[in-house]
Amino acid sequence: MRILLINGPNLNLLGKRQPGIYGSLTLKEIEERTAKRAAELGAEVRSFQSNHEGEIVDFIQKEAEGADGIIINPGAFTHYSLAVRDAIEGAGKPTIEVHISNIHGREEFRHHSVVADIAMGQVSGLGWRGYVAALEALVGFLQERNQ
Amino acid sequence: MRILLINGPNLNLLGKRQPGIYGSLTLKEIEERTAKRAAELGAEVRSFQSNHEGEIVDFIQKEAEGADGIIINPGAFTHYSLAVRDAIEGAGKPTIEVHISNIHGREEFRHHSVVADIAMGQVSGLGWRGYVAALEALVGFLQERNQ
Amino acid sequence: MRILLINGPNLNLLGKRQPGIYGSLTLKEIEERTAKRAAELGAEVRSFQSNHEGEIVDFIQKEAEGADGIIINPGAFTHYSLAVRDAIEGAGKPTIEVHISNIHGREEFRHHSVVADIAMGQVSGLGWRGYVAALEALVGFLQERNQ
Amino acid sequence: MRILLINGPNLNLLGKRQPGIYGSLTLKEIEERTAKRAAELGAEVRSFQSNHEGEIVDFIQKEAEGADGIIINPGAFTHYSLAVRDAIEGAGKPTIEVHISNIHGREEFRHHSVVADIAMGQVSGLGWRGYVAALEALVGFLQERNQ
Amino acid sequence: MRILLINGPNLNLLGKRQPGIYGSLTLKEIEERTAKRAAELGAEVRSFQSNHEGEIVDFIQKEAEGADGIIINPGAFTHYSLAVRDAIEGAGKPTIEVHISNIHGREEFRHHSVVADIAMGQVSGLGWRGYVAALEALVGFLQERNQ
Amino acid sequence: MRILLINGPNLNLLGKRQPGIYGSLTLKEIEERTAKRAAELGAEVRSFQSNHEGEIVDFIQKEAEGADGIIINPGAFTHYSLAVRDAIEGAGKPTIEVHISNIHGREEFRHHSVVADIAMGQVSGLGWRGYVAALEALVGFLQERNQ
Amino acid sequence: MRILLINGPNLNLLGKRQPGIYGSLTLKEIEERTAKRAAELGAEVRSFQSNHEGEIVDFIQKEAEGADGIIINPGAFTHYSLAVRDAIEGAGKPTIEVHISNIHGREEFRHHSVVADIAMGQVSGLGWRGYVAALEALVGFLQERNQ
Amino acid sequence: MRILLINGPNLNLLGKRQPGIYGSLTLKEIEERTAKRAAELGAEVRSFQSNHEGEIVDFIQKEAEGADGIIINPGAFTHYSLAVRDAIEGAGKPTIEVHISNIHGREEFRHHSVVADIAMGQVSGLGWRGYVAALEALVGFLQERNQ
Amino acid sequence: MRILLINGPNLNLLGKRQPGIYGSLTLKEIEERTAKRAAELGAEVRSFQSNHEGEIVDFIQKEAEGADGIIINPGAFTHYSLAVRDAIEGAGKPTIEVHISNIHGREEFRHHSVVADIAMGQVSGLGWRGYVAALEALVGFLQERNQ
Amino acid sequence: MRILLINGPNLNLLGKRQPGIYGSLTLKEIEERTAKRAAELGAEVRSFQSNHEGEIVDFIQKEAEGADGIIINPGAFTHYSLAVRDAIEGAGKPTIEVHISNIHGREEFRHHSVVADIAMGQVSGLGWRGYVAALEALVGFLQERNQ
Amino acid sequence: MRILLINGPNLNLLGKRQPGIYGSLTLKEIEERTAKRAAELGAEVRSFQSNHEGEIVDFIQKEAEGADGIIINPGAFTHYSLAVRDAIEGAGKPTIEVHISNIHGREEFRHHSVVADIAMGQVSGLGWRGYVAALEALVGFLQERNQ
Amino acid sequence: MRILLINGPNLNLLGKRQPGIYGSLTLKEIEERTAKRAAELGAEVRSFQSNHEGEIVDFIQKEAEGADGIIINPGAFTHYSLAVRDAIEGAGKPTIEVHISNIHGREEFRHHSVVADIAMGQVSGLGWRGYVAALEALVGFLQERNQ
Repeated sequence: MRILLINGPNLNLLGKRQPGIYGSLTLKEIEERTAKRAAELGAEVRSFQSNHEGEIVDFIQKEAEGADGIIINPGAFTHYSLAVRDAIEGAGKPTIEVHISNIHGREEFRHHSVVADIAMGQVSGLGWRGYVAALEALVGFLQERNQ
Repeated sequence: MRILLINGPNLNLLGKRQPGIYGSLTLKEIEERTAKRAAELGAEVRSFQSNHEGEIVDFIQKEAEGADGIIINPGAFTHYSLAVRDAIEGAGKPTIEVHISNIHGREEFRHHSVVADIAMGQVSGLGWRGYVAALEALVGFLQERNQ
Repeated sequence: MRILLINGPNLNLLGKRQPGIYGSLTLKEIEERTAKRAAELGAEVRSFQSNHEGEIVDFIQKEAEGADGIIINPGAFTHYSLAVRDAIEGAGKPTIEVHISNIHGREEFRHHSVVADIAMGQVSGLGWRGYVAALEALVGFLQERNQ
Repeated sequence: MRILLINGPNLNLLGKRQPGIYGSLTLKEIEERTAKRAAELGAEVRSFQSNHEGEIVDFIQKEAEGADGIIINPGAFTHYSLAVRDAIEGAGKPTIEVHISNIHGREEFRHHSVVADIAMGQVSGLGWRGYVAALEALVGFLQERNQ
Repeated sequence: MRILLINGPNLNLLGKRQPGIYGSLTLKEIEERTAKRAAELGAEVRSFQSNHEGEIVDFIQKEAEGADGIIINPGAFTHYSLAVRDAIEGAGKPTIEVHISNIHGREEFRHHSVVADIAMGQVSGLGWRGYVAALEALVGFLQERNQ
Repeated sequence: MRILLINGPNLNLLGKRQPGIYGSLTLKEIEERTAKRAAELGAEVRSFQSNHEGEIVDFIQKEAEGADGIIINPGAFTHYSLAVRDAIEGAGKPTIEVHISNIHGREEFRHHSVVADIAMGQVSGLGWRGYVAALEALVGFLQERNQ
Repeated sequence: MRILLINGPNLNLLGKRQPGIYGSLTLKEIEERTAKRAAELGAEVRSFQSNHEGEIVDFIQKEAEGADGIIINPGAFTHYSLAVRDAIEGAGKPTIEVHISNIHGREEFRHHSVVADIAMGQVSGLGWRGYVAALEALVGFLQERNQ
Repeated sequence: MRILLINGPNLNLLGKRQPGIYGSLTLKEIEERTAKRAAELGAEVRSFQSNHEGEIVDFIQKEAEGADGIIINPGAFTHYSLAVRDAIEGAGKPTIEVHISNIHGREEFRHHSVVADIAMGQVSGLGWRGYVAALEALVGFLQERNQ
Repeated sequence: MRILLINGPNLNLLGKRQPGIYGSLTLKEIEERTAKRAAELGAEVRSFQSNHEGEIVDFIQKEAEGADGIIINPGAFTHYSLAVRDAIEGAGKPTIEVHISNIHGREEFRHHSVVADIAMGQVSGLGWRGYVAALEALVGFLQERNQ
Repeated sequence: MRILLINGPNLNLLGKRQPGIYGSLTLKEIEERTAKRAAELGAEVRSFQSNHEGEIVDFIQKEAEGADGIIINPGAFTHYSLAVRDAIEGAGKPTIEVHISNIHGREEFRHHSVVADIAMGQVSGLGWRGYVAALEALVGFLQERNQ
Repeated sequence: MRILLINGPNLNLLGKRQPGIYGSLTLKEIEERTAKRAAELGAEVRSFQSNHEGEIVDFIQKEAEGADGIIINPGAFTHYSLAVRDAIEGAGKPTIEVHISNIHGREEFRHHSVVADIAMGQVSGLGWRGYVAALEALVGFLQERNQ
Repeated sequence: MRILLINGPNLNLLGKRQPGIYGSLTLKEIEERTAKRAAELGAEVRSFQSNHEGEIVDFIQKEAEGADGIIINPGAFTHYSLAVRDAIEGAGKPTIEVHISNIHGREEFRHHSVVADIAMGQVSGLGWRGYVAALEALVGFLQERNQ
């Protein structure tokens, strides 16, 4: 079982700036924890981060075929990137959207996600644990479906 | 460590009606799975369900003092019960909001939660696994904070 | 054939207050006229009124299984009780919404019903006759469908 | 007692197109059933249908004086014909608005009626029975008022 | 002269939680101060608090007939309970709405009251003194009217 | 203790026009009743009325330094005079906003006050008694704070 | 000089219904008074009334070429008939819009005119005198322009 | 018969600036033409212009008692001065609002008048003739009413 | 293969007025060019124009049954005629909407079409060529479907 | 004559995914059909596709000078890429916007195009034929202009 | 070269109140610094401050003719004084709007300026330096234009 | 002292296209003038321009640490790029937003900036001088803060 783990713009700075909001783990540490938990569950994670909208679209197009599901934290793209949305929809794989901070308790413009209605679910405000929670739910769902 | 697990109106019918949307586990089974996982993590769960807004407010007022955190699926109250919101805010305990189905992908009026901006986080669309995910994140957060 | 006849908050005062708006028949008299007409049509009516949202949800959950259809005047709950809406939707029985006065000709906030789009139909402004009209249409529809 | 029964644009095709939404009775059959029930109640029905807004205004202007009440299904005019609204308001007769399908459960633009706030009431979603329900309520109301 | 003094959900915790916003007097102390001032003015107060919307509706229906006026702090119900609004309107007694904190200076959703336009007046942000101010104005108004 | 009592445009006509809405006391009589009550409470009132926005701003700028609090009925300026709002905010004294009639029950444009969110509180619809109620609350608050 | 005087739906009933709003002169009398004043000013009036949107469009198309200006009271068409608007704009003649009652003080939906921004001016609420006022202003404008 | 003719801010510059929009007559010339026409109709005009909102309120308060009607072009105050609105409403005299240019065809914010719904009527876009038209209609209306 | 070619209000003036916007071909010339191209493609065109909404509804009802598809330029009806929309939807034939000028680049109110979401497609801003483009696409689609 | 043919994000997958919506032709086949038709008309097409917003801006900046017109299907960029819009506007060449499916009949957010008001026209819902239709219209327009 | 430097309500208190927001320079000091920089650039500044809207309108009307440009900080009038807007527009001189604090980062109601779209530019959030920056840009622009 | 000077999409064409709106200086000339003024003030400028959103995010991430402040003209990104906004916010350096033309006086969509509320200030409509004005204010602010 293969899961794509995608992070959008500015998330490469996790753990380095604004730890009060985003926590003190770096993106690398989060990716490793997620990958470790995946291994325990018999799954494999393919991680990717980019500040370029087009690169995320390219990555989804290229990698989705060989993958079973997607975990994505689109960062600021959450709120306007219809190109990323279309790429996810075109991929046709179960997708869970993750946000480290609680987007529903921040500025008004962060409440709306253009990805949420085509995702299977959304996890928001659970810090780095949100990625693991998404992983467990996604793998659980896929195992059930594949029976 | 003691966690309140609260479910709002109509959730007593989980597993009995509309399994296509809400899954086939009953509320009792979900409460048991959550309690079992809590036991593994060294925590205890106090479960409660009601179709009555006032009873949920009463419960939070009475039980919050002796508890460390709250997991709540307010059901339809999510979208209008400011009384439940005020009770949670008054309790002053870390709270995670759970929805079995993905509220961001359903009717427009289900996108907005009057609880979300005072909650620590929100889990939506992960089915019964969402309760377990919320539990793990909440216990993890509390253990870290208590160190 | 068994029909649930549900009335929401303040409707227990029908005929006692504001007769200019709501007419001079008491709720009891309306229930009797509806029951009498039901008997003529070979149906039976189970009446219920409450000022408590939770009690109406409880009633629908408990009684819907043994019933063939629902006639409901949700009173003020019409405009905000998503819990009642979810209970009706979960019940899965043909439902007609009744309002004694014409809600479309009163204050702006009374024009919108959170129940209307899941109901089979809506009768508004026909006074006590609206209950009888709803009953006749509902029984007619059920008889046709059961053939 | 004389009741005007007016049907707006495209309703001349009732029973011929989209029976899933509008039922299988033709307009003529509905008019006959309504007229028959009127006769039983000691009333007389004057039926009229047009696809032309101006003709409906003309008809109301000419016929309202000799009539006691109006039953109207304005079809698509429901949502924008202020000319029909003004004609009804000018006529000064008790009016009940009828819709065969439940307009509150269809497209957004069908939820609003420019006639509803000057009508005595509205019947929506009861199929052909809605016309009979409106007739009975209107005749009942007029008999009471005339006593 | 008899005045109903009604407090809505979570107000039973006054003086116990969030004193920075709501002050340090308990609800009991506020009720006593109000009752004492009423006695000085030759009036009597009947106090009631509930977290249950339906109980407040029940209370108003039962007690309003024997009362001369109502002072109500609906708490969170202020912003959505049309059932409480209808109960007050049905009672037909002069009513003053009280809020301990200044609702016009808090979250956006607290600015609107569904009760305000049927009340005689509104007192907001005067702390416990707001209840006494409302009482004096209400008794003064009733004495003048009764002359 | 010194309180500023400010009244905005058209309030110089109190008691002379539209007594049905604004009561039959003149502004002078209201100012005297307020001053008399202030004397009983050991405070002094400085009264001012103007139809000119700029004069009210001038008055607040000049008098606020030597005053302990402000009671203001901004009349029509309530709804748009940001200049008066800025003057009050700049003065930095506890301020209570008073309206003789209930602004929440009148025309839509009177529901919003540009002053309310920087005021300590608002009294609306208590007639001339509203000024006295504001005075008592303001003096009580100042005495407590000065202890 | 030739002026078109056009009246829209229901205005043929002027003087016959709702004289409280529309006055007691009939349309014929208004047309005569306008024509008489036109004769004094050396102009000629061509009057027309219809309840049919298409007939008004036809009339403008046919008659505009031989006319110098238009006075139109579009009745209910004021608020939605883009077809009449386009006909007026296509005609390219100075046009004054007249309303017998003050549309800015009636229902919300009557405040907006789809004709107003292409008209030279609008006269509202002056009763039958509004037609004469429009005529005088239009003739005065045309005489000045033709010099 | 005595008519107040009031002009608001910047209208003292009529005929001096932007003649393409406002025409080439000065305010003095317009006042004289209006006064001359009033004399012919047996009425007298009292003219006033100010750039100060408070002065217009003062003027209406002082002069309205001895006057029979008001013609006012509030200039920019049209769109926000609730103080002028309240002064006019308090005066209780028939009032006609005049605008030299067609406010309905200019910038969006000029379409709405806070005075229009309490005025008897509005004349817009007829240039200086609008004042005369308003005068004739107002005098005609008053003569009829006084009979 | 038979195609209905329908043009709405004011389009009979094509080529005669505002050629800068609508081009210099008359409607007749456009109809002929469309018919000629249809003949080349083995199809036949039935042309119709009316300024009357009701006539267009009548025409669609009568002619749709014997036709294979519809090309319609509803003119101003595009933006509000739900009656025309319902007629097209009832007809159940593939329909292409044509606009000579680019409605998306003109006034705000021309951007919205009440027909567009039930049409197969929309061609806007291609001048008279838009009719031919629509014809070619419609015939192509029908030929493919009929194979 | 040289025409730029630009396709935005995800359109490189045409013919490979969701053929029910987008048809079964690949982008390469569409480009070839368009180029072949261009050759017949004596024009030449320069094709380009990218998932990167910046690359499309670069391309337009570099190629527009040597081109006579632009045909663009901006894909998801249609709805928000003001950068692409500005590039097109800066290029100053006649541009036609093409959409394979009917954007006006899909999700709400697809109805608005930020390019449409600066384009010469828009073709939507004609499948691959839309590109050819745009080409023909564009070449026709350019030939006429160049005469 | 002569520049008007106008400051609106409450700005006479600069440097005396809320220095955290508005800085510690008094208005006099700012005017002097601006005048000194103007002298260096060969220009002269005419300063004016008022809390009265009408006085600002008067000042602009009287002084604009002899001036070359306007620098204005309208204070609270920025957000609603259409009278000041009309005076500036009528003056026809290049105008730069200055705000000491960043109005775009403060309360919602301070984001909108009714002056901005007729000004040449706006400087916001640069403190007292904003006046100097505006002066330099305005003088630079005028010198260039006058060459 | 080191200042980043960032320009967004299409600004590389400054001086080459639309000089009527954007002036005749090239971006290079503007950068040089800004750099020269910086040298006079003892500061250094690091210039950057890109049409790619991702490159601007990369640049800010890499360069912000070693810089003291940012001047940015985000071009079209101003209105939607939350990714650029997040990068600026994450950098935590004082930032001034510059626009060559007055964005508040252009199309509606240019009025809103997603960057403005986190910037220190905004300069709009001063042409190339706006960059110099921003530089002077930024350096002045930094020098003051560093004392």
